[in-house]
Amino acid sequence: MVKVGLLGCGTVGSGVVKLLEQNRDIIAQRAGEEIVLHKVLDRDVEKCRRLGIASAKIAADVEEILKDEEIDIVVELIGGVEPACSYVLEAISQGKHVVSANKDLIAVKGREILEAAEANRVDFYYEASVGGGIPVIYPLKQSLAANRIKEVIGILNGTTNYMLTKMSREGLNYEQVLKEAQELGYAEADPTSDVEGLDAARKIAILSSIAFNSRITLDDVYVEGITRITPTDIKYAAELGYVIKLLAIAKEDEEGQVEVRVNPAFIPADHPLAGVNDVFNAVFVKGDAVGDVMHYGRGAGQMPTASAVVGDIIEIVRNMRSGCNSRLGCTCYTEKKVLKIEDTKSRFYIRMSVVDRPGVLAGIAGIFGNNNVSIAAVVQKEGGEMAELILITHEVKEKDLRKSLQEIKELPTVKDIGNVIRLEGIDKE
Amino acid sequence: MVKVGLLGCGTVGSGVVKLLEQNRDIIAQRAGEEIVLHKVLDRDVEKCRRLGIASAKIAADVEEILKDEEIDIVVELIGGVEPACSYVLEAISQGKHVVSANKDLIAVKGREILEAAEANRVDFYYEASVGGGIPVIYPLKQSLAANRIKEVIGILNGTTNYMLTKMSREGLNYEQVLKEAQELGYAEADPTSDVEGLDAARKIAILSSIAFNSRITLDDVYVEGITRITPTDIKYAAELGYVIKLLAIAKEDEEGQVEVRVNPAFIPADHPLAGVNDVFNAVFVKGDAVGDVMHYGRGAGQMPTASAVVGDIIEIVRNMRSGCNSRLGCTCYTEKKVLKIEDTKSRFYIRMSVVDRPGVLAGIAGIFGNNNVSIAAVVQKEGGEMAELILITHEVKEKDLRKSLQEIKELPTVKDIGNVIRLEGIDKE
Repeated sequence: MVKVGLLGCGTVGSGVVKLLEQNRDIIAQRAGEEIVLHKVLDRDVEKCRRLGIASAKIAADVEEILKDEEIDIVVELIGGVEPACSYVLEAISQGKHVVSANKDLIAVKGREILEAAEANRVDFYYEASVGGGIPVIYPLKQSLAANRIKEVIGILNGTTNYMLTKMSREGLNYEQVLKEAQELGYAEADPTSDVEGLDAARKIAILSSIAFNSRITLDDVYVEGITRITPTDIKYAAELGYVIKLLAIAKEDEEGQVEVRVNPAFIPADHPLAGVNDVFNAVFVKGDAVGDVMHYGRGAGQMPTASAVVGDIIEIVRNMRSGCNSRLGCTCYTEKKVLKIEDTKSRFYIRMSVVDRPGVLAGIAGIFGNNNVSIAAVVQKEGGEMAELILITHEVKEKDLRKSLQEIKELPTVKDIGNVIRLEGIDKE
Repeated sequence: MVKVGLLGCGTVGSGVVKLLEQNRDIIAQRAGEEIVLHKVLDRDVEKCRRLGIASAKIAADVEEILKDEEIDIVVELIGGVEPACSYVLEAISQGKHVVSANKDLIAVKGREILEAAEANRVDFYYEASVGGGIPVIYPLKQSLAANRIKEVIGILNGTTNYMLTKMSREGLNYEQVLKEAQELGYAEADPTSDVEGLDAARKIAILSSIAFNSRITLDDVYVEGITRITPTDIKYAAELGYVIKLLAIAKEDEEGQVEVRVNPAFIPADHPLAGVNDVFNAVFVKGDAVGDVMHYGRGAGQMPTASAVVGDIIEIVRNMRSGCNSRLGCTCYTEKKVLKIEDTKSRFYIRMSVVDRPGVLAGIAGIFGNNNVSIAAVVQKEGGEMAELILITHEVKEKDLRKSLQEIKELPTVKDIGNVIRLEGIDKE
């Protein structure tokens, strides 16, 4: 019998308690041994009681779990970097295996924790930290391990995906859908972490570390959120055959340099990620052998996330039974250079308001030309005295684009640069 | 250094040779040890030479590989049940680990092989047998292990998916798209295994065995192919908001009885599987905790399949290094009852030609009613003297539907029952 100690019994923690109970029989069969909840720590003792947890199992403090020699596996569902990090490291030093769903922690302290686990010959598993219940981390580490991973593109935040889907379908603006998402409980009162892309940034830091075998931390990720996306951009995207998604992107170039960023992007309407709507998440992986694969499902929620946590527990028990914990170890073998955003290359959509007069486009095109920005398509929308100009560039250096836009902004014929959005998921020109 | 012996150096085998060479560095890093091809067996010795395999590595017969004590892992890519089965069992009895992409073998002899592997404490891995390079088998065994799997629905055959996609997009008929698929090399000269659903049947036998922890063999799978699908059915499907796909379906009901079948089916146009087009494959899994997850990618082809094979080799090497081979073992713990097709329940689309005259529908509806077949929707298409009647049923027992149709066929007002196709992927009524 394997005994689990649970730190944090909020939404996901309660799901873990329920799932261990509800599927006790098949979990035992598949793990090869019965798995029981031994102790739970949560500030809200009443909630633990309501979940049917016996008083004897409710810990008074964290040490009661970390120091309990009967506990084999600690499940950390507290969230945040501290004190979670200290608890996890102490559990590891006590020879306990750890399962965590804590993206904040892993995106910042992943390497340290994985190395500590390896040194102590214990497992640290974290499938639930990215994409809720969708299997993404272990497929990358295992079934896809023969590939040089070229690209990982994820829709990793359900809140913003719900909002963008709603904006696309109903033509609503950002403020309207945010309000609705908050009313439905999909967005928090302070939505910053979701809408500014920080949640997705943590997840792509975790995935890219595995994909590229190099530790990428949150600080390495360039981040733009969705707050500036307008119904107009969504409409033009549709007219041009694209949809707008908040994408978490990690790429490695031929020289082994990586770029990792989160930004709203145009993707072709027939790209597999374009059909990922509402609160669903997906991770699209391009490997040199496997080509394109995608994993899709619910990226959050009580039971999907609990599914990943308990899946990890089962794997750890199998390892315990075979005496091979830490068989996967820390997989950051290299230190790859992370490109600054200025040095990355992308294709861009640019929307600007210009005076509707001959020669205006020539002036703009001249500036782009002088800065090595090549234009692939131009659409001009009439609108009285002012016209709206939509440009799609070929692949350009971000630096060159920014310099062009700086100069274009100064043109007396250009009233306003409405938005600039990258294009993704298009095969190389 | 781990040494691999390769049985069969056809398309996939050549891919494995290439991939082991091309990604030698990262494969060694991820496996923790260098992996080298030690010996290759193939009838076509010249082809082996053209791949750059040294003469000393080309085996004269199978025993030269199976008896070579230096070989740790045997990769079986011969295909077919025999002699592959004997070779695999001999390799296992010699204490060698085996990787196989052979769906024919596993769908028939899976249990025997897995039990032999467990008894000999060696690994038998087979990710490549289903869905090419898409990670499907190990996610089911590992990350999703905490779930009671309710349903697995796959698009598991690229040839038929290409053909149905083509029929949908271009209104072509079955014979036309088959010819085109053959010209492109997507379909074989004798397309039976693909178009009659046998290839998909083997794959769903493998997946359902894992999902339900019960050994399901090819004989347990009810199979219908796509040869009777017409442009008319595809057109009506679209009008009603569906697309037609060849689906491999496995479900477990509340009583623990399973149904496993391959048949063309209507699925709602907004179902994630509906967007899986051309030669792509996908596996859609419904778990009681995780909800819906889907894995998508190229289900066949040289390098995608080699990706899965080498991924398995890497996992086996990790197990060897940690001394925990056979940690997953045989996972068929139970013997679940497989329902006969007559006892399964589905919703159906029925297309029939009837005389266009008052009272005809009443007669048909009466027969359905008497047999407990409840009709959800009826569309009648005018066509001169004859009318085309399209019916969609609620969920009914297959047995009851068949009896009704038997009786309806006898009606003088019914000229012909054009087609009967199941509906899938619709949430329970």
